[in-house]
Amino acid sequence: MLKPKYLQKIKSQNPLIHNITNVVAANFSANGLLAIGASPLMSAAIEEMEEVPRISNALVINIGTLMGKEVAAMVLAGKTANQVGIPVVLDPVGVGATRFRKQTVATLLKEVKCAAIRGNAGELATIADVDWQAKGVDAGNGNANVAEIVRVVAEKYHCVVMISGETDYLSDGKRHVQIHNGTPLFPKITASGCLLSAVCGAFLAVAKPEEYFDAMVEGCTTYALAGELAAKQLSDTQHGQFYVGLLDQLASISPEQISQLARVSYE
Amino acid sequence: MLKPKYLQKIKSQNPLIHNITNVVAANFSANGLLAIGASPLMSAAIEEMEEVPRISNALVINIGTLMGKEVAAMVLAGKTANQVGIPVVLDPVGVGATRFRKQTVATLLKEVKCAAIRGNAGELATIADVDWQAKGVDAGNGNANVAEIVRVVAEKYHCVVMISGETDYLSDGKRHVQIHNGTPLFPKITASGCLLSAVCGAFLAVAKPEEYFDAMVEGCTTYALAGELAAKQLSDTQHGQFYVGLLDQLASISPEQISQLARVSYE
Amino acid sequence: MLKPKYLQKIKSQNPLIHNITNVVAANFSANGLLAIGASPLMSAAIEEMEEVPRISNALVINIGTLMGKEVAAMVLAGKTANQVGIPVVLDPVGVGATRFRKQTVATLLKEVKCAAIRGNAGELATIADVDWQAKGVDAGNGNANVAEIVRVVAEKYHCVVMISGETDYLSDGKRHVQIHNGTPLFPKITASGCLLSAVCGAFLAVAKPEEYFDAMVEGCTTYALAGELAAKQLSDTQHGQFYVGLLDQLASISPEQISQLARVSYE
Repeated sequence: MLKPKYLQKIKSQNPLIHNITNVVAANFSANGLLAIGASPLMSAAIEEMEEVPRISNALVINIGTLMGKEVAAMVLAGKTANQVGIPVVLDPVGVGATRFRKQTVATLLKEVKCAAIRGNAGELATIADVDWQAKGVDAGNGNANVAEIVRVVAEKYHCVVMISGETDYLSDGKRHVQIHNGTPLFPKITASGCLLSAVCGAFLAVAKPEEYFDAMVEGCTTYALAGELAAKQLSDTQHGQFYVGLLDQLASISPEQISQLARVSYE
Repeated sequence: MLKPKYLQKIKSQNPLIHNITNVVAANFSANGLLAIGASPLMSAAIEEMEEVPRISNALVINIGTLMGKEVAAMVLAGKTANQVGIPVVLDPVGVGATRFRKQTVATLLKEVKCAAIRGNAGELATIADVDWQAKGVDAGNGNANVAEIVRVVAEKYHCVVMISGETDYLSDGKRHVQIHNGTPLFPKITASGCLLSAVCGAFLAVAKPEEYFDAMVEGCTTYALAGELAAKQLSDTQHGQFYVGLLDQLASISPEQISQLARVSYE
Repeated sequence: MLKPKYLQKIKSQNPLIHNITNVVAANFSANGLLAIGASPLMSAAIEEMEEVPRISNALVINIGTLMGKEVAAMVLAGKTANQVGIPVVLDPVGVGATRFRKQTVATLLKEVKCAAIRGNAGELATIADVDWQAKGVDAGNGNANVAEIVRVVAEKYHCVVMISGETDYLSDGKRHVQIHNGTPLFPKITASGCLLSAVCGAFLAVAKPEEYFDAMVEGCTTYALAGELAAKQLSDTQHGQFYVGLLDQLASISPEQISQLARVSYE
């Protein structure tokens, strides 16, 4: 059973989360981080990538609307984060879509030690190098075993890996968890995955390295459940209201709700 | 009478729409495309402009918050789209405001074959080279005949041209249509024109070239009507709620509603 | 007592506000400006920085997600604005966080004459060069006297200075005002400070230079009160709804409401 521990730490410690993210997700990620109790700082300026991670408690790198010059900023921020020992979350948005994204993710995974990688099945399948038909930045379809993909990537990069979908899969190579909370409205709004990656940054920011797996499980469950609670009050075409309601739920969700409503299976 | 045909195709085919758009509209356009049933991919990185259009079903180019280096990316993406035969929509945001925007649009219209150009009266008047007092990125006022402007630009560039306003005007040079649906709340929210251009991309993506005019008429009517339905439930100062409600209506609007409520006049 | 005068001028004159702002705030600022009755134009392209201020009624410079090349665009736009005599508002987002931001603000304050500087206590403390513990782009905590900081900066730069917080402080070096309207929900949403700076631009745009202080007091009070009215209908975790409701209130707030509900103390 999930015993929430980190959400309260976020509320009391108010960690600063440095986000290098895409223009679609920037506003929503900042609002979502504020809702969960963290403090967002969005910056991709290479001029300050040796400074911002030093004042931050986690770094989230998202390649959603990457421009060429940002890759160097991401690498520099990632290296700085590694030096000062704060966790790095990588969101490899649409990595399978183009060579540029594949090369960027390869560079990031080579140069930066990640605490967690979070994406959809298509993105992680690309990183695992298994066959998959992704669709742009959407998950797409494939025959590969999703549980296997998270395990393989977690082992290879020695970090926590999370795949979002109808069921969420998490693994650190040894432990394997599935989260059954959520709502079909998640893929109906843009940046819902990007915001989850940002939220993961907040949960990792208040955890010790040996707790990263537990913090990721709690963070992903909290997010899935917030969406589930928001969707309960809505019809399946109320995309706009879901966008708004998700922020409200992220701000109001409590450890008690998480304990009671989490549907998490430990393998 | 309008017999909706393409909305259902969007729902079933879920076309991928490549958007090169501005930072103000990026999030709203992505959410609006998801609401209508399409899949958004936002990218302006020149490194992937020869690849993204190849996996996409339409390309939407919007010059709203143009930076210098993006022009080359737009041209390259447009040429690639032309090569692979997917439709290109151009949204010449604020083209009359500066020489830079005028030159950019001139370059795009010279280098890229557009399936459709969509803008407000001031923007299309600039392209038609008739006298008009635009106001920044807003429509402004002029004495020119809007019906004449759409026809002239459509003839010149051999594409469908659409001017948004209290009444919407469409022409492919031969056929001329006016749409009387809509709401005064549209110009009260930012990026409502940008989102319409993106939605046009989704409608063109599921149409054959000889159907582009019909697809544009259905797309623009669907959008105008979604706004009208959203506004019905609101007062004229509920800008924020309209922003949210428009997404909800785009997700829920049905071919039956379009048949029944469309006010389209064919000349 | 506050006698509203400028809000009505915004509604009737619909001033065009040129914003060089960050990717997080761009959409919200544009929507907020439309709500208050102004016309937003977002552009940071150096190619048009000698033209856009010439057609605008105010310029708002916000360094929130600064990239290196934008500094030159900001300086050029600011110089152009000074030449044509339109007011410039500077929002020094997170100026204390990095050397890059400090240098950028120093450059801007040297090269551009500002009509107003608006920020949180941490940002203005950095500009005043007093000791303060800012937290990223958030206000943070310090022992310095906030009323003293606004006065010192206003005197040094001969402009109106405004610090947002639970109580808002304004000074032009001679006159000193505190605004007690507002809501704890303001710091819970991203870009609420950025939007206020944009709104200040709209109020200054319809004022004469000798009225800038009065226009700033009315603008900041209007904004604080719009938030207060939006929050009244919400619980303290309805962040998403507050984001939406603030826009609605900005669109509906009237001079009568401002006269009746303003809690402004003149020193």
